[in-house]
Amino acid sequence: MTTVTATYYVHDQKGDLEKKAESIALGLTVGSWTNLPAVDQEQLKKHKGEVISVQAVEPSPASGHFTSKRTAGEIKIAYPAANFSADIPAILTTIFGKLSLDGEIKLTDIDVSESLLKAFPGPQFGIDSIREELNVYDRPLLMSIFKGILGRDLDEFSKQLKAQAAGGVDLVKDDEILFDNPLTPFEERIAIGRQVLNMEYENSGHKTLYAVNLTGRTFDLKEKAKKAVELGANALLFNVFAYGLDTLQALAEDPDIHVPIMAHPAVSGALTASPLYGISNQVLLGKLLRLAGADFVLFPSPYGSVAMEKGETLAIANALTSEGSLRKAFPVPSAGIHPGLTPKLIQDFGTDSIINAGGGIHGHPEGAAAGAKAFRDAIDGIVSGQSLDEAASNSAELETALTLWGRG
Amino acid sequence: MTTVTATYYVHDQKGDLEKKAESIALGLTVGSWTNLPAVDQEQLKKHKGEVISVQAVEPSPASGHFTSKRTAGEIKIAYPAANFSADIPAILTTIFGKLSLDGEIKLTDIDVSESLLKAFPGPQFGIDSIREELNVYDRPLLMSIFKGILGRDLDEFSKQLKAQAAGGVDLVKDDEILFDNPLTPFEERIAIGRQVLNMEYENSGHKTLYAVNLTGRTFDLKEKAKKAVELGANALLFNVFAYGLDTLQALAEDPDIHVPIMAHPAVSGALTASPLYGISNQVLLGKLLRLAGADFVLFPSPYGSVAMEKGETLAIANALTSEGSLRKAFPVPSAGIHPGLTPKLIQDFGTDSIINAGGGIHGHPEGAAAGAKAFRDAIDGIVSGQSLDEAASNSAELETALTLWGRG
Ligand SMILES: [Mg+2]
Ligand SMILES: [Mg+2]
Repeated sequence: MTTVTATYYVHDQKGDLEKKAESIALGLTVGSWTNLPAVDQEQLKKHKGEVISVQAVEPSPASGHFTSKRTAGEIKIAYPAANFSADIPAILTTIFGKLSLDGEIKLTDIDVSESLLKAFPGPQFGIDSIREELNVYDRPLLMSIFKGILGRDLDEFSKQLKAQAAGGVDLVKDDEILFDNPLTPFEERIAIGRQVLNMEYENSGHKTLYAVNLTGRTFDLKEKAKKAVELGANALLFNVFAYGLDTLQALAEDPDIHVPIMAHPAVSGALTASPLYGISNQVLLGKLLRLAGADFVLFPSPYGSVAMEKGETLAIANALTSEGSLRKAFPVPSAGIHPGLTPKLIQDFGTDSIINAGGGIHGHPEGAAAGAKAFRDAIDGIVSGQSLDEAASNSAELETALTLWGRG
Repeated sequence: MTTVTATYYVHDQKGDLEKKAESIALGLTVGSWTNLPAVDQEQLKKHKGEVISVQAVEPSPASGHFTSKRTAGEIKIAYPAANFSADIPAILTTIFGKLSLDGEIKLTDIDVSESLLKAFPGPQFGIDSIREELNVYDRPLLMSIFKGILGRDLDEFSKQLKAQAAGGVDLVKDDEILFDNPLTPFEERIAIGRQVLNMEYENSGHKTLYAVNLTGRTFDLKEKAKKAVELGANALLFNVFAYGLDTLQALAEDPDIHVPIMAHPAVSGALTASPLYGISNQVLLGKLLRLAGADFVLFPSPYGSVAMEKGETLAIANALTSEGSLRKAFPVPSAGIHPGLTPKLIQDFGTDSIINAGGGIHGHPEGAAAGAKAFRDAIDGIVSGQSLDEAASNSAELETALTLWGRG
């Protein structure tokens, strides 16, 4: 049967997990069962949710603030696809609609039947096509962010973009809090960005993607995105959780918006941060963003000040890059990244990932171009088997970065 | 200055709330300040976030699972509207984008400048116009839900709708997990629903609204909603949190979708349930849904099995009905409601609210019409100053309900 199977981490006061599981499976599908006439059971059979497993697990330390003791369990329930339309809002409403309001329960995993997966585009390009586009293989890509563009004009924008590209950055992204504004309007950012990057490409042969922040009203986004592509945008940044996963999917599916989309995790912490409630990072930033068609997924790295637990970051990366019928998306662990973390990043996230830095590039004493070069030298050294120090022995920029920020 | 002021409940390990507040105000606006040249400060002044207040408060008992002690504070920050476009995704990304991922922080309140409010429609109809439409004043409206329609056909749908309307229900809503499906297709539900309700109106003079569940892909919703209105739909149900608040706003703003919209809280618990993280119910189900244009807002009542804390339900209701430049939306405390709760509901939520029952209507021993009549008799009695028992002395249906479910 075609289903979505959901896994929940449940803390239950009543202590009867089997009963809880059965009440979820019925309550979110046919409502009731044992008291139904046989003829009704026959009719409703194919709509009935099914408890797949119930397993007692350790309660979270976070549940310790309750006066009464909690029983914790991992519950898996299969929901027949006959119950919902093949779209993410219908799936979310079915598996975690009313249930999200029903006590201490977290949606920790989902498994979508192969036949249902066909309804979803997945990444338009995927890791392989993006590598071909950039002509970069066998190393993590390097990405950087503008620094403090809000309130600045297009001159500052061009200057920063040029410096980052000149240093060898593969992707530059807008800040997620840069909306359409009179100083750096959307269309002009794209047009001038295109000019700057074309010039850099002619000079150095190095290609850089610039992900412009697609913002505004939902029903204007497609038209804005098409305009962006016309003007030469080669990537889009999108605050998907301020909109909706289905909106991302619609952008990814539109054949006229044929550029990779970078999903920003803004607002997602409101859904993922609690150990007791909400949706796991693996599901939200991993499985659902891949389903909806993100080509790049940003999330807090486990190393910086805005940190995510390492296990959660690895689960996201795995959900984005595991073998399957959908293309793979690039994991982009972000925040607090400097060149000294390159060995750790490559060890944890592999070469099919993106190293993304803001302060770790702009804060370089010799400027952003040197900051980018320090990263590129670190990356090239590590993937060719050198240690950081060996790589730094041939790179003054890297040596300076390591002296400033340390080696890990 | 036109601003959005956000209030956060913060648990901070470092114990320096003033510093934390300053780092939020800068980090989410101009990035840095004290080390900027005076000429840059002059340029960026109007974009700088401002700390309005920092107040130490009690840490949440839920923070007790941490080994280290937390300092708790309520922090208010004003974000200049110059930084974002006048839409909910931009506002959310600014005030709780990256910040939602930054440790134990909950967005507990927002205050939108009067001039910025003008960018938002608010409820299309509001409480007063809906009362006029239904010709019902000075009492809470009564709403009911279909029971187990999933897997059933249009005959069962018609039968249930007829019974509910006959009992005097003012609004009937689809179950939020009823999507477009071959047994009860969207357009046929509307057409047949219209027929049934018209017939009831001719018989009894009682008008009932039927809120059909608007589902499917985001970019198809406007067209589907317009079709629904053409076919005679007089209300829409919408799982707004499975889509996005801006999508609700676009539906509310469209002049061709001129029917009231009922916002369902499905999935919202993933954002609101934790005391330490996410967004408060007051903000999400109250202020933001009113801003985006919901005419009715469902939320778990404080009485049932899927319960919300009473203070939170009252804060939602207050955000929906307080005096202001936007029309008022109906609060709909739901789940676990039976006629014996009527006095409590009216005391807590006033007459400008909706009493909404599923099992409390369908579970009546004499059927749904009797179940609805029991509620109407309880409501009419209470608002005319009777006690429940006095009301029941003239209503066999109410007496039966009180005997079955109790008096509160
Ligand atoms: Mg940023
Ligand atoms: Mg329901």
